[in-house]
Amino acid sequence: MASFCALIMAGGGGTRLWPLSRRARPKQGLTLVGERTMFEHAVDRIAPVFQPAETFVVTGADQVQQLLLQAPELPAKNFILEPVGRGTAPAIGLGAIHLRRRDPQAVMAVLTADHFIRDVAQFRQALMAAARVAADGHLVTLGIAPAFPSTGYGYIKQGERIGQTDGFTVFRVERFTEKPSPETAYRMVESGRYNWNSGMFIWRVERILEEIARQMPELYDQLMQIEAVLGTPAYEPTLRRIWPEVTPQAIDYGVMEGAEDVVVIPVDIGWSDVGNWSSMWDVLPADPDGNLVVGDHVGIDTHNTIVFGGRRLVATIGLKDMVIVDNDDAVLICPLEREQEVRDLVQRLTEMGRTDVL
Amino acid sequence: MASFCALIMAGGGGTRLWPLSRRARPKQGLTLVGERTMFEHAVDRIAPVFQPAETFVVTGADQVQQLLLQAPELPAKNFILEPVGRGTAPAIGLGAIHLRRRDPQAVMAVLTADHFIRDVAQFRQALMAAARVAADGHLVTLGIAPAFPSTGYGYIKQGERIGQTDGFTVFRVERFTEKPSPETAYRMVESGRYNWNSGMFIWRVERILEEIARQMPELYDQLMQIEAVLGTPAYEPTLRRIWPEVTPQAIDYGVMEGAEDVVVIPVDIGWSDVGNWSSMWDVLPADPDGNLVVGDHVGIDTHNTIVFGGRRLVATIGLKDMVIVDNDDAVLICPLEREQEVRDLVQRLTEMGRTDVL
Repeated sequence: MASFCALIMAGGGGTRLWPLSRRARPKQGLTLVGERTMFEHAVDRIAPVFQPAETFVVTGADQVQQLLLQAPELPAKNFILEPVGRGTAPAIGLGAIHLRRRDPQAVMAVLTADHFIRDVAQFRQALMAAARVAADGHLVTLGIAPAFPSTGYGYIKQGERIGQTDGFTVFRVERFTEKPSPETAYRMVESGRYNWNSGMFIWRVERILEEIARQMPELYDQLMQIEAVLGTPAYEPTLRRIWPEVTPQAIDYGVMEGAEDVVVIPVDIGWSDVGNWSSMWDVLPADPDGNLVVGDHVGIDTHNTIVFGGRRLVATIGLKDMVIVDNDDAVLICPLEREQEVRDLVQRLTEMGRTDVL
Repeated sequence: MASFCALIMAGGGGTRLWPLSRRARPKQGLTLVGERTMFEHAVDRIAPVFQPAETFVVTGADQVQQLLLQAPELPAKNFILEPVGRGTAPAIGLGAIHLRRRDPQAVMAVLTADHFIRDVAQFRQALMAAARVAADGHLVTLGIAPAFPSTGYGYIKQGERIGQTDGFTVFRVERFTEKPSPETAYRMVESGRYNWNSGMFIWRVERILEEIARQMPELYDQLMQIEAVLGTPAYEPTLRRIWPEVTPQAIDYGVMEGAEDVVVIPVDIGWSDVGNWSSMWDVLPADPDGNLVVGDHVGIDTHNTIVFGGRRLVATIGLKDMVIVDNDDAVLICPLEREQEVRDLVQRLTEMGRTDVL
């Protein structure tokens, strides 16, 4: 069998979990669950599948140092640096040329650094099954069995059932859809034919580069210029010259929607992208009052409220459906139904020049 | 004219302003307004009326050190210590025997250490007028012109108008009433015949001791035992022996309601007892969104909310009629209409043994 490598996408920024996440401390560096960071969890859970030498990380120069400290077991040369972030399509392409040099026949798993997975054993089984499917040339997506009609995720529609591998069923992908309205989300989940798009993909390195060549020829050309100097002193200056000119694009829009032979393997692994405070409900258990509490909290008549505390006591009276995030230098208080406005708040802080809390 | 002395009642505990106020840091030690503590304001505003030698403070042994530091201009011997708190009637009686020893003819003003007064010039005028009325033997209360139908204050009903002094009108007191229901409060304020009971009294030392002797003979007997050894080495052991046996009682219930010749001088001095977070509206100006903000706050769609911040940014989205108090070791979030439950919260923390935040 061809070699199997992991490419962990760890370039994310994002401030939807402000004031916990910051520019200099993106979500993958947060200890949202237990004592380990999201990135550490991402590395830990694949360790039984991939040797350290088979585990690669794409990230930015501004983040690589803390990631190196968090995963000292990985070879430093396996951290592939982007001079600037250009979205997932270029990042995956850059990873792919590195992996092709190591083994042109390699199968690669594109994984995320800042998502939560509850059932890691099942996740690893799914990865192994997907690798076998991918070795045949399919572009495999891991589709998540939807737990509720989420309007925050993209969906993948199952087409023809094409097989069964190690207990997993494989479907052709009929189409990718963007984040739906509540009504559409409800219908999609009811139909039983849709899965959440987890952003995790498994494919042969050659196949994804072939699709990039076909659908994103400009990016492919740029990648080829870089690949030509891989392993030489010209690599870094070439990358630094070319990368800022790369057009930002997500892999879903740039490649997947128009790709040939895309399949989905539905998995039920307790996955969440932990993309906002509400999604902490997917990740941590609630107390008898329905509150999700991390840290020191004393509440009177407080229900269905997220308290993500820091070093101090958070005391609440008569709250319902709120989120409170207490950090060393900032505390956020917001109704859960308005948490999408955390972005606006961060925007306002940016306009105010409040770099002290960004 | 007889000498005129001030007795500042500074023994208060109280945790209604938790988490700002604590057992070891009662309200009088807080900097709620400006840079000075409530006690410093209380001393400052009477300085033009009373010499330091004429200004006395009744407090507890656990608080005297910080009060001495806050008012270094006052003679240390003017701090009269209670071994344990026994309510205002015993505290005033203890102060009175100290003042009688200094001048048996003295008029004393019983003042509070933790209340807010906006119009201090008018307050001082009122004190001088009240002293003249008190010199004639009346027990004078300063009645506050009610700014709204408060259910949090006691009221004094005006009886017969008996005179005019320096622009202030003097009424006999018809009766004292406890904190009323909203309907009763509304009717009382509408009638124009009621004032808030400020807890500030002006009287001749002899007169209040005479009333204590008549209405609280046991306390009077205890005070006489202490007065007998005043200025001798036996004073402190005698006080320590007797004081724990003193029955706790408030001056209103123990003396004023049954006293003879009680008068009220209505004053309009911008007074507030700052007894809960809502009363901060009486003390500090609101911003254009109707918020009362102390410290660093950034809000989106936040209205009629009190943010009493500490050293960190308080960020709020979509809040209305809330109080947020951010302190070094605790943060409180509570709807304004439920702030009376801060007591319950403090009670629960007490039961939990959370002395770290009490």
